[in-house]
Amino acid sequence: MTLSTKELILNQERNVSLSCMLLPVGDDYGKITRRPAVLILPGGGYSVCSDREAEVVAYPYLTAGYHAFVLRYSVAEHRTWPNPLNDYEHAMELIRANADEWNLMPDKIAVIGFSAGGHLAACAATVAKNKPNAAILGYAALELGIAQACQPGTEIIAPVDHIDGNTCPCFLFAARDDNVVPIQNSLNFQSRLAKFGIQFESHIYAYGGHGFSTGAPSVIGTGICDRIPNWVNDSIGWLGDVLGCLTADGIGNPVCPAKIDGNNEMVLNVDCTLGYLQQQEQAQAVLAPVFGVIDAVIRGRFTNVEGAYSVLRPATLRSLMITIGKSGEDIASLDCLLRKIPNKKE
Amino acid sequence: MTLSTKELILNQERNVSLSCMLLPVGDDYGKITRRPAVLILPGGGYSVCSDREAEVVAYPYLTAGYHAFVLRYSVAEHRTWPNPLNDYEHAMELIRANADEWNLMPDKIAVIGFSAGGHLAACAATVAKNKPNAAILGYAALELGIAQACQPGTEIIAPVDHIDGNTCPCFLFAARDDNVVPIQNSLNFQSRLAKFGIQFESHIYAYGGHGFSTGAPSVIGTGICDRIPNWVNDSIGWLGDVLGCLTADGIGNPVCPAKIDGNNEMVLNVDCTLGYLQQQEQAQAVLAPVFGVIDAVIRGRFTNVEGAYSVLRPATLRSLMITIGKSGEDIASLDCLLRKIPNKKE
Amino acid sequence: MTLSTKELILNQERNVSLSCMLLPVGDDYGKITRRPAVLILPGGGYSVCSDREAEVVAYPYLTAGYHAFVLRYSVAEHRTWPNPLNDYEHAMELIRANADEWNLMPDKIAVIGFSAGGHLAACAATVAKNKPNAAILGYAALELGIAQACQPGTEIIAPVDHIDGNTCPCFLFAARDDNVVPIQNSLNFQSRLAKFGIQFESHIYAYGGHGFSTGAPSVIGTGICDRIPNWVNDSIGWLGDVLGCLTADGIGNPVCPAKIDGNNEMVLNVDCTLGYLQQQEQAQAVLAPVFGVIDAVIRGRFTNVEGAYSVLRPATLRSLMITIGKSGEDIASLDCLLRKIPNKKE
Amino acid sequence: MTLSTKELILNQERNVSLSCMLLPVGDDYGKITRRPAVLILPGGGYSVCSDREAEVVAYPYLTAGYHAFVLRYSVAEHRTWPNPLNDYEHAMELIRANADEWNLMPDKIAVIGFSAGGHLAACAATVAKNKPNAAILGYAALELGIAQACQPGTEIIAPVDHIDGNTCPCFLFAARDDNVVPIQNSLNFQSRLAKFGIQFESHIYAYGGHGFSTGAPSVIGTGICDRIPNWVNDSIGWLGDVLGCLTADGIGNPVCPAKIDGNNEMVLNVDCTLGYLQQQEQAQAVLAPVFGVIDAVIRGRFTNVEGAYSVLRPATLRSLMITIGKSGEDIASLDCLLRKIPNKKE
Repeated sequence: MTLSTKELILNQERNVSLSCMLLPVGDDYGKITRRPAVLILPGGGYSVCSDREAEVVAYPYLTAGYHAFVLRYSVAEHRTWPNPLNDYEHAMELIRANADEWNLMPDKIAVIGFSAGGHLAACAATVAKNKPNAAILGYAALELGIAQACQPGTEIIAPVDHIDGNTCPCFLFAARDDNVVPIQNSLNFQSRLAKFGIQFESHIYAYGGHGFSTGAPSVIGTGICDRIPNWVNDSIGWLGDVLGCLTADGIGNPVCPAKIDGNNEMVLNVDCTLGYLQQQEQAQAVLAPVFGVIDAVIRGRFTNVEGAYSVLRPATLRSLMITIGKSGEDIASLDCLLRKIPNKKE
Repeated sequence: MTLSTKELILNQERNVSLSCMLLPVGDDYGKITRRPAVLILPGGGYSVCSDREAEVVAYPYLTAGYHAFVLRYSVAEHRTWPNPLNDYEHAMELIRANADEWNLMPDKIAVIGFSAGGHLAACAATVAKNKPNAAILGYAALELGIAQACQPGTEIIAPVDHIDGNTCPCFLFAARDDNVVPIQNSLNFQSRLAKFGIQFESHIYAYGGHGFSTGAPSVIGTGICDRIPNWVNDSIGWLGDVLGCLTADGIGNPVCPAKIDGNNEMVLNVDCTLGYLQQQEQAQAVLAPVFGVIDAVIRGRFTNVEGAYSVLRPATLRSLMITIGKSGEDIASLDCLLRKIPNKKE
Repeated sequence: MTLSTKELILNQERNVSLSCMLLPVGDDYGKITRRPAVLILPGGGYSVCSDREAEVVAYPYLTAGYHAFVLRYSVAEHRTWPNPLNDYEHAMELIRANADEWNLMPDKIAVIGFSAGGHLAACAATVAKNKPNAAILGYAALELGIAQACQPGTEIIAPVDHIDGNTCPCFLFAARDDNVVPIQNSLNFQSRLAKFGIQFESHIYAYGGHGFSTGAPSVIGTGICDRIPNWVNDSIGWLGDVLGCLTADGIGNPVCPAKIDGNNEMVLNVDCTLGYLQQQEQAQAVLAPVFGVIDAVIRGRFTNVEGAYSVLRPATLRSLMITIGKSGEDIASLDCLLRKIPNKKE
Repeated sequence: MTLSTKELILNQERNVSLSCMLLPVGDDYGKITRRPAVLILPGGGYSVCSDREAEVVAYPYLTAGYHAFVLRYSVAEHRTWPNPLNDYEHAMELIRANADEWNLMPDKIAVIGFSAGGHLAACAATVAKNKPNAAILGYAALELGIAQACQPGTEIIAPVDHIDGNTCPCFLFAARDDNVVPIQNSLNFQSRLAKFGIQFESHIYAYGGHGFSTGAPSVIGTGICDRIPNWVNDSIGWLGDVLGCLTADGIGNPVCPAKIDGNNEMVLNVDCTLGYLQQQEQAQAVLAPVFGVIDAVIRGRFTNVEGAYSVLRPATLRSLMITIGKSGEDIASLDCLLRKIPNKKE
């Protein structure tokens, strides 16, 4: 019933290994039969895998009840893209394949990456075959310039360019004064996540530079702003929001949907926003009755009708139907009709 | 020695008032002879000034030793721009004019604005004559669309379009799922602050919608993520970083410069970044010696020279000179030479 | 709808005043029609009322939605006991008499006292006619020696000697190295609260000396341990536990009973502990059936029967009946029988 | 450079084992060449060693940079006292003997015990040959009644009866409504620590019953008060206070002396309290000059001379000499004289 640790060699030649820290289940944890997990990807500019962003990051997640893994991926002479991404795919496949044996939930696995490891984690979140269920990106290299600086002359990609409606929820953190990976990396990534309606949370701290890891005094010492160490527990809270909160009674339901609205689904639906649905010509007939009621309500309540519409366009049709008093049945029935209409993205 | 409160009428006709909460100084606070202050701008779509974003926001700042003011600016039929901005200018002038009488530090005054009040606070931070020394922007309306929705047909401006090198440091917070003011408002504002090298901190929380104020249970109830109430103390920590930390011994020195680098000064200087200085032709002669040393060091340490340069370009010349072992005297002397050269922004 | 402040003179001759800070209700706080309150009693050795333990203490409670009052009671030449206690009685009567006008809950009023003000608060909690509903006692003078040191030659009492089953719930905090009021004051007070089954919480911090007030940097500066400022929010959490948690939806139900068990009620009941009931001869006939079942269960489960009894004696009969599977009806019915038997305390 | 884990069998026959979790030093932790450590003693009434109070407790201390050990001591049929204490002595000897190999600081080792393990930890703190340097006692069985209930008929001892001037600093926590180990156990232990001038910190939470371990949701679920999980980080802060704070720059100096005053030293000294020194007849000649100055100052400042003396008696002579302006040299010189006088405890 102790912590079970082991180190698996994934690729001897490239020096790729997976360090596994598995918590007990059952017995004293009667109602926990499986656990969610984190897979940690250390930074180091694809030259090394920094020990300061490896096992030391795992302990707070073990405290919270998550199994933890650290992947030491291909670096230095083996760094050439897509070697590191292939290592990630290998590791994630292996973890999910062992879900039964290791008592883990294969659909509740988050990656946590720092700097170059954050580049790799963001590639996992966007282009990997084996996507994680959430990604935590610490002062991550997300744009092409900085990525290429790590791997000049290779085919390395910029994850910010590959965000789409299938990207997993992301948690970003960095320091404003990062002078290695410019803060625009995290900012532009968020803007793209917003464009595609993906769930995210982000914390940009006033100062702390690059490479502060957990921000714990025993890891980084001094020179970072007081608030930086908060990212660790904040990320655990956020994982609970998007994967479900783990308690002694087992895992709960997520309170945050992975997507903010339905605008990026294959078909239209009541979780699309009002503004989006207004532009879908093929849906106007189906929507006419409810749009009529909404319009009447707006005109009844506001003198500044256009202003009201501006404010309400980002709201989902579901939330508006609830506001105007439509029943759950009405909503479900309209959703059913909308889902017959393909979503034509421009 | 109690809290001194009063309500000043700034404009009877437009129903503009300034609620003042002044803390004692001296005596039991022997070394505090003056205090920093916050000026709170409630939200309400320029239709009302919400009481939930007014005095209730002041108490935590009083706890931290800041005088607090609430401005109820022109709304409803008096909202027409620039009435609210004029109200702000009036209030800030009055506060600074009373600095001696009210025992406040006229150069340590932050604005705190929510939603439409965040629009006004951001206008204060960018275009006002009487700039604040820091701005805290909560789920703020920063782009033109949402601003115009509040005031259709007026000459209202979008603060995001007016950020420049003179903008004051900003602290932003919002919820990812804000369905009134789209999250892009806060994201794009940060991107512009980054472009101009302005100090900022930001916290985008997974969920909480619009209008959560302090997030205290007695204000907002339920339905927001656990981390939201943290913005209050985080903002107080940040004010300490950028204005100086207030203790019983008086106010300390700021640990965060208002600007990340010197790229937006009138003249060149050693706090400009390497990349920026490399592009200033008129400075190459002055810089040649130190650039030579830096180049030698890079070539000595890294095989991937271009990669190293990519990573080092966002660093300030000062930080690089420290790294290569230059003395404070050397740095001061080069700074002196650089400051004779006008900064030609493209 | 601003904070309403006023200062009431309670006794001109003795310089007694009540500073009132009243929060708005209704409107933007639709479901809050009344609020709980705190009455702050500053310290100062009955020589002064320290401003550092007065209004500055109120702000965090205002943040949490409590009305706040500061009583400046009789000190210096007017200190003679029971003048300060009479001032307290006067203030509490006045506050409760104005409950309707001030929108406060007369049965949800806590006192907060520091040092000599903690002595007064503890007297309020134990011997006052107008008991508070909870008491927060900061580095309080609770024993006779220190109390007499403040008021030599007067009839001043030691609240620790007056604790009984009617004492209200208490929250205590102090620093281990207090060299003005020895830490035994807080320790012995807790022991007496425990003896009488009264609810309490306590935090004794490693170091911080005497008189640290809220521990906020702007109040106390340096030299206290990092954890001290936590008492403020911890006390607010505790008030929520014992008075009910205040949210935008109004006040909830307390989760902590004011008494740990029923051993100090006038009559016996199912919330008395097993050990206590075993010693009440007059109740043995009524208890025989359930005691028989409990005994059988213990003998069935444990080989060390006496050890099991030792551990179970502090448990309430109610909790044991639930454990052995008795229905709510059974419990209520036995409670009814027990309540006909007077509780004979030795 | 990963976490090194191993399980050592200390006594095969009695099923005693030591689970070791050793952090890396050097390299990425350049200035940390040795680490402090915690030795965890799970609870379980000497019948079992609960897994919920074992490795799961270690992770937060690993996060803070401490090596961690879990001792599974003699329980069930092997429980007979002093078997568990002998297991502890064995484990602590082994850990200290391996200090060089395991890169740990042999004089910075804390025990952490829960319930019956708290009994064992408190015995370690008071009567063991191999004392720990600090002890963290969670809802610990400290008095004879509860100890005997765990081990009827054995020679088990009550640690509360063995506190003296050599007891190590202690951190205690428990819930007010613990219905297994009555709260008086923790209260009386503190009173004895206070009597002997030992450093301690304590947190008694309003509710949470018995056995809540770290209070993390994934360990205990629900039904405990919100503040309980704070004990973990508070204990880490306290360890930093009494052992020295661990940062990336190595370990700092303790800010809290292990003893509050010098009253329990073998010889008199300037860290004895005024009240204590006043009663040491053999020291009056040496003390007469400084006592004269103190008396003059008191009479000059206070009309209530006896009151002033009452308040000042718990202060150390050192602090009073500083207050009246004596130089460090004067203090050292008097200390030298006092240390020639044996401390005669009544």
